[in-house]
Amino acid sequence: MKFARYQEKQTGLIKSAVLREETLYEIEGDLFNGWTYTGPSNQLDNVTLLSPLEPRSVIGVGSNYIVQGGVKPEQPPQIPVFFYKSLSSVIGSEEPIVIPAGIDEVKFESELAVIIGKTARHISEQDALDYVFGYTIANDVTASQFFHPNGHWMVGKSFDTFTPLGPYIETELQLDSIRVQAVHNGVMKQDSGLDLIILNIPFLISYLSRVMTLQPGDVILSGSPSGADFMKKGDEISCIIEEIGVLRNPVITA
Amino acid sequence: MKFARYQEKQTGLIKSAVLREETLYEIEGDLFNGWTYTGPSNQLDNVTLLSPLEPRSVIGVGSNYIVQGGVKPEQPPQIPVFFYKSLSSVIGSEEPIVIPAGIDEVKFESELAVIIGKTARHISEQDALDYVFGYTIANDVTASQFFHPNGHWMVGKSFDTFTPLGPYIETELQLDSIRVQAVHNGVMKQDSGLDLIILNIPFLISYLSRVMTLQPGDVILSGSPSGADFMKKGDEISCIIEEIGVLRNPVITA
Repeated sequence: MKFARYQEKQTGLIKSAVLREETLYEIEGDLFNGWTYTGPSNQLDNVTLLSPLEPRSVIGVGSNYIVQGGVKPEQPPQIPVFFYKSLSSVIGSEEPIVIPAGIDEVKFESELAVIIGKTARHISEQDALDYVFGYTIANDVTASQFFHPNGHWMVGKSFDTFTPLGPYIETELQLDSIRVQAVHNGVMKQDSGLDLIILNIPFLISYLSRVMTLQPGDVILSGSPSGADFMKKGDEISCIIEEIGVLRNPVITA
Repeated sequence: MKFARYQEKQTGLIKSAVLREETLYEIEGDLFNGWTYTGPSNQLDNVTLLSPLEPRSVIGVGSNYIVQGGVKPEQPPQIPVFFYKSLSSVIGSEEPIVIPAGIDEVKFESELAVIIGKTARHISEQDALDYVFGYTIANDVTASQFFHPNGHWMVGKSFDTFTPLGPYIETELQLDSIRVQAVHNGVMKQDSGLDLIILNIPFLISYLSRVMTLQPGDVILSGSPSGADFMKKGDEISCIIEEIGVLRNPVITA
């Protein structure tokens, strides 16, 4: 099942809906704790998509894919490279990514994003997927020029517009068959299956749940396949997981 | 004016109030966008204090005080050491700090916490304090054993219970006269005025607001004076800013 969040062009109202074919069936309530259909429906043409949820928090993980033909580490790292991104960095599909003043390029990173649906504390890897509400696509936009030399990524990851999410939440996804792709100005730059991921989704959820209590609305960006590249003003970037959709954003300067 | 958030012992209800002397005058509404007195009042003895707000996000800054007699850097760093802490790490005064499994000690760091009250984007240092709702005390508890060797602090800063906040929000605070203190098992370990801070509060707000749009409920921990130390099971730590109150937490193991 696919969920969308959007603004109606005619009324300006912000709504959520279930998407079937090209039709949005309006819902109300809480995605995680119970929602109902309200009756009205809408066509995609009549709305502006927004990020499909307003996350409680956005967590990323660094260096989490090997290249095709590469070798995975035998043991997971004792402490993975986790980081938070700002909530204000979240935008929807079609909204522009804004390059901050003072630099010319930022990096795109197409990623599978996992949306937690239930309170999760000290969860085993075996049970981890039970706590997932659904999946969306993220572009973990990064200005590495703003990484602190001692390894703090917060500023370089947190500029407004640096976390496009969307276009939809897909609640049923066969993880082993997806491909995480990025098309940059029409050229495919990233294209990997989850067979190349180092720390898999159950590991990420389990590990994090042993540090902090995860809550509904927490979003985990599961890392970016090889091929992430720099974008400049005027570029267009599409992050694609076919079963979810196309997260497309133009790039502008501040 | 002082604000508190608490659970009534008798009813179990969670409420907010204005504190005058020892009396809590119940309020309802949104701290940042308009609240009103509801009529009833309560005594401190009849409630269990909670963190005085549920933050939208918690941002920390590293290495932000010089020692007494030390010399401040002439220029602010181009990229300060900023990091996020998890929302699940927030607890109130008197709640236990839990040392995670596998380690014996965690560090306390007493800090002045700044609560943003208005949407702030690209704010000058001169205007920055206009965006502050109030101040509270934070203990930026840290398990540096869980810092990633490449400098990512997220895990070591984000365990559940690692951000005691409270006991109250004080909306009127003369920043130049406060002292940020920590008393560890009865011994004063931290005791500095803001004359020893490197990046001052207006700088922190202004810098962050040029990266991400700050929103009401964002909490900025402004860094810890020299003297932060390790605590173990059975210890007691009180972070004190006299004009705000005493944030006291016992330490236990998982």
